Amino acid sequence: MEKTVICPGSFDPVTLGHIDIIKRAANMFDKVIVGVFTNEKKTPSFSAEERIQFLKESTAGIENVEIVSYSGLLAQYCKERKVDAIVKGLRAVSDFEYEFQQALTNKRLNPQLETIFLTAESESMYLSSSMVRTVASLGGDISNFVPEMIHDRIVERLYKKEK
Amino acid sequence: MEKTVICPGSFDPVTLGHIDIIKRAANMFDKVIVGVFTNEKKTPSFSAEERIQFLKESTAGIENVEIVSYSGLLAQYCKERKVDAIVKGLRAVSDFEYEFQQALTNKRLNPQLETIFLTAESESMYLSSSMVRTVASLGGDISNFVPEMIHDRIVERLYKKEK
Amino acid sequence: MEKTVICPGSFDPVTLGHIDIIKRAANMFDKVIVGVFTNEKKTPSFSAEERIQFLKESTAGIENVEIVSYSGLLAQYCKERKVDAIVKGLRAVSDFEYEFQQALTNKRLNPQLETIFLTAESESMYLSSSMVRTVASLGGDISNFVPEMIHDRIVERLYKKEK
Amino acid sequence: MEKTVICPGSFDPVTLGHIDIIKRAANMFDKVIVGVFTNEKKTPSFSAEERIQFLKESTAGIENVEIVSYSGLLAQYCKERKVDAIVKGLRAVSDFEYEFQQALTNKRLNPQLETIFLTAESESMYLSSSMVRTVASLGGDISNFVPEMIHDRIVERLYKKEK
Amino acid sequence: MEKTVICPGSFDPVTLGHIDIIKRAANMFDKVIVGVFTNEKKTPSFSAEERIQFLKESTAGIENVEIVSYSGLLAQYCKERKVDAIVKGLRAVSDFEYEFQQALTNKRLNPQLETIFLTAESESMYLSSSMVRTVASLGGDISNFVPEMIHDRIVERLYKKEK
Amino acid sequence: MEKTVICPGSFDPVTLGHIDIIKRAANMFDKVIVGVFTNEKKTPSFSAEERIQFLKESTAGIENVEIVSYSGLLAQYCKERKVDAIVKGLRAVSDFEYEFQQALTNKRLNPQLETIFLTAESESMYLSSSMVRTVASLGGDISNFVPEMIHDRIVERLYKKEK
Repeated sequence: MEKTVICPGSFDPVTLGHIDIIKRAANMFDKVIVGVFTNEKKTPSFSAEERIQFLKESTAGIENVEIVSYSGLLAQYCKERKVDAIVKGLRAVSDFEYEFQQALTNKRLNPQLETIFLTAESESMYLSSSMVRTVASLGGDISNFVPEMIHDRIVERLYKKEK
Repeated sequence: MEKTVICPGSFDPVTLGHIDIIKRAANMFDKVIVGVFTNEKKTPSFSAEERIQFLKESTAGIENVEIVSYSGLLAQYCKERKVDAIVKGLRAVSDFEYEFQQALTNKRLNPQLETIFLTAESESMYLSSSMVRTVASLGGDISNFVPEMIHDRIVERLYKKEK
Repeated sequence: MEKTVICPGSFDPVTLGHIDIIKRAANMFDKVIVGVFTNEKKTPSFSAEERIQFLKESTAGIENVEIVSYSGLLAQYCKERKVDAIVKGLRAVSDFEYEFQQALTNKRLNPQLETIFLTAESESMYLSSSMVRTVASLGGDISNFVPEMIHDRIVERLYKKEK
Repeated sequence: MEKTVICPGSFDPVTLGHIDIIKRAANMFDKVIVGVFTNEKKTPSFSAEERIQFLKESTAGIENVEIVSYSGLLAQYCKERKVDAIVKGLRAVSDFEYEFQQALTNKRLNPQLETIFLTAESESMYLSSSMVRTVASLGGDISNFVPEMIHDRIVERLYKKEK
Repeated sequence: MEKTVICPGSFDPVTLGHIDIIKRAANMFDKVIVGVFTNEKKTPSFSAEERIQFLKESTAGIENVEIVSYSGLLAQYCKERKVDAIVKGLRAVSDFEYEFQQALTNKRLNPQLETIFLTAESESMYLSSSMVRTVASLGGDISNFVPEMIHDRIVERLYKKEK
Repeated sequence: MEKTVICPGSFDPVTLGHIDIIKRAANMFDKVIVGVFTNEKKTPSFSAEERIQFLKESTAGIENVEIVSYSGLLAQYCKERKVDAIVKGLRAVSDFEYEFQQALTNKRLNPQLETIFLTAESESMYLSSSMVRTVASLGGDISNFVPEMIHDRIVERLYKKEK
């Protein structure tokens, strides 16, 4: 059974929590698309190109992963790419409720589309991109939170930005 | 026992979930005021006039419903209009906590004012105005989410707006 | 619009939190049935007769309240008694989830039957019959938790029982 | 990528909610083991044999499903059977927390073992075996809750049992 | 055992809920630092100076309280000031999840730093600075929500601001 | 400021999660009483004497800890022992709600008595005595869950018991 799944998100920037979910998805399914959502109306801390670059470097060793950007409706994009399931990590109850509503909405929009949840590792339970941005911008140590190879570029961008 | 209740909200735009709650309130109480909250400092997707018009068309068949706009404190408006209870739909735990705090606050501000919760239908559990705006603006099909008679105007406004 | 509602429960024993909900229901609706659920397979601390007697004394001043016992399916009993809605108090998120599932089940079993939730007063948020039983049985003071007129009988039963 | 998953549970009795999860798992993975947990110390309403029989009949059309019983530690059973992931349905926040703790425990006991969550369909959000037992034992209609082919046997057992 | 704790927050403006937590912290620990977080990028309703002044007046009678402002990373500030624990009030589940993630993050950033939670009094369970700002700006009575001595200045600022 | 706190529980048996909370309490307060709740009507897996012995061995290195058993109302016991605060660990939302209600009840019963919450370490978030009992009785490895020095006795009791 050949199955393609997507890990969607803003990845602004990618964290070790994201990488954990992507790796585990790549271990369960034949093909994993990592979809970087881009929205003209929002101003991310990192451009779509940078976010894609970070993801490419952080997932370099995993063969069945493809990094893309997408901008429209996720349910529609999944139809076009013949994605079988969305894969999301759950960290907490508030995640759960939001993701639950997203999953029910996506099922309404695309009844073939499954949503699959993985639980965050206990070490990643507090990790989010916005927390990384906050800690980095205030000068805190984020080396436990992001992939080593992209750490310096994240710090440089976010810490300088504050001054 | 003559009882007047209010269904307050932004209704930007009204969804089938709102209509379900309004109908069930109209079935339980003598008079149902649907109160469209307007706030000068926020820029809604639809003007107060449009939101009222959408509600009027969507509730056309229900005799004991009145559509109004209000702008100040809900607890104060209820005092002026001799409203006995606020009626709200609950979809999820996060709704519940927010509404709980609102209900306790309103009771402090107006001790005679009751707050009554109805549970959302299971088909409406994922429905919200902001979800409708997101899906419509990205070109998704919202015909399962909003009243049929106002569907085209919502799509026209939100989908065009994006371009 | 004549409306009949039911406040169902075990009331083993009735607490001030229950009385608050019953009073507020009686203030909103024409008739309030307080339904004491009896289940042959469970051994309550107080017999159905005692629980009914406690409720009768505690609601003596409220004209539109009727105290009954029932033993079958609540949705069925509501059909027989032409009850329009079930009224329940909500204290916390865990209450909410359980009651939500009950409400959806009851709607499936009896589509005309509405469920209405009131929020517990902030002073009653921690109150439950089982908490009253625990505190009383360990010799704690329950005078803030149960109606004054039945206090002594509850203490006598529960505190003695422990020895 | 050949993947084997397990849907564990008591299935006392199987509901339409369980069947939905099993079907969707069978659609995503090569092999689905449905594991009926048996525990000598508990007295289920239906024997392990009956529960397995009900599951076999209810999943008759699905080729890649195998029904088994197991009695020890799930994480250990998964090791023996080379199961890649546990699949569970999530209905509500309370489910989520419990399942989250189970998933973290199972990962500790068997680090290779993944846990995957699917969201319940909105129509199944209130469905559980214990609710089915309660409704059936009180004489309520459970035809919306359990597979048609096993309906009569469930009613006969549970309704008679009460008398 | 000499222990120093910090009560961090925006205090925009301080509420009776904050004062309750500060008092109880001062009753348990030798020194309580109340840390007013200031962030150049946000525009509070009250300046850092005003917020500090409000806190000073509201805690005038408590000897072991010191009011300060801080702007960087809380975990870093605690290191510099030799703070042993952060003290936070919990009102609801949504508070809990957010604070839990903050606590785990702070522990990662500063492993010596403990986070301690107190439960809000039941009367303060619905109280927040943003609720106070909303009610005051709409002309509602906030005398039950903020310390008496600063009430008029808050009303004057927030109610005028709206016009 | 001399402060005495209590860590109450059944400790049937003590887990590494309990030990973590006790150590952190001992680091913050002058005296920590670990109170083993005993209830004649319940049959624990380990006798009060065994549970106390396990706790004594597991906390042997911590000077300001005292292990006791108590059987009545916690709020009353705290009054007798001049305990200033109850210390509890929080793992999840369901813990939080239950503990919140306990804390409000205890404050009603003993207004001087404070309740203080610490967050569980992320590695202990899934740990509970009942989980330890289940895993051990099914033959699973509990060496990550309980103190090393008492591990064998727990396994011997619980695993044998099953056969």
